[in-house]
Amino acid sequence: MKPTITLEYCPKCGWLLRSAWMAQELLTTFTDDVHGVLLQPSETSGLFSVRVDEQVIFDRKTAGRFPDIKELKQLVRDAVAPDKPLGHSDRKPA
Amino acid sequence: MKPTITLEYCPKCGWLLRSAWMAQELLTTFTDDVHGVLLQPSETSGLFSVRVDEQVIFDRKTAGRFPDIKELKQLVRDAVAPDKPLGHSDRKPA
Repeated sequence: MKPTITLEYCPKCGWLLRSAWMAQELLTTFTDDVHGVLLQPSETSGLFSVRVDEQVIFDRKTAGRFPDIKELKQLVRDAVAPDKPLGHSDRKPA
Repeated sequence: MKPTITLEYCPKCGWLLRSAWMAQELLTTFTDDVHGVLLQPSETSGLFSVRVDEQVIFDRKTAGRFPDIKELKQLVRDAVAPDKPLGHSDRKPA
């Protein structure tokens, strides 16, 4: 089974729209690499986190911010398809 | 565990956008009634189906069309929150 990406978001904070946008970005980039993207309303206020199966790859509380989309794609890529090039969204060489 | 709604769609058909829109409609209406909505790219061409957990509540091949959003909300409501009124999206009395 391919991995499932979960975007858990605080609906009372109004974060459905940005989460749905991120879901579409991830599904456009990783169509063949993932089982799907789950949008999950959280019961915890202020929560925004991204999981690959059970593994948390981004948490807003820990980071103190939302991910930008380039960073999010890199994190997902590293977890689900480490050899996949991301074009414009790829890391610049050090 | 609350039910998970799965929208399985054919990515090659370009159906991500309508599926993501439907996901947002469902998450807006059923925020507290569902575990989440899973957007799942299908490997089967032309497939569009909606499941509540494992139960298929709409299949494009069977229906010969896409659901309209009012119909989709009624189907989901009947499966996850049968007593929930849907306001404008509710059935008219016979």
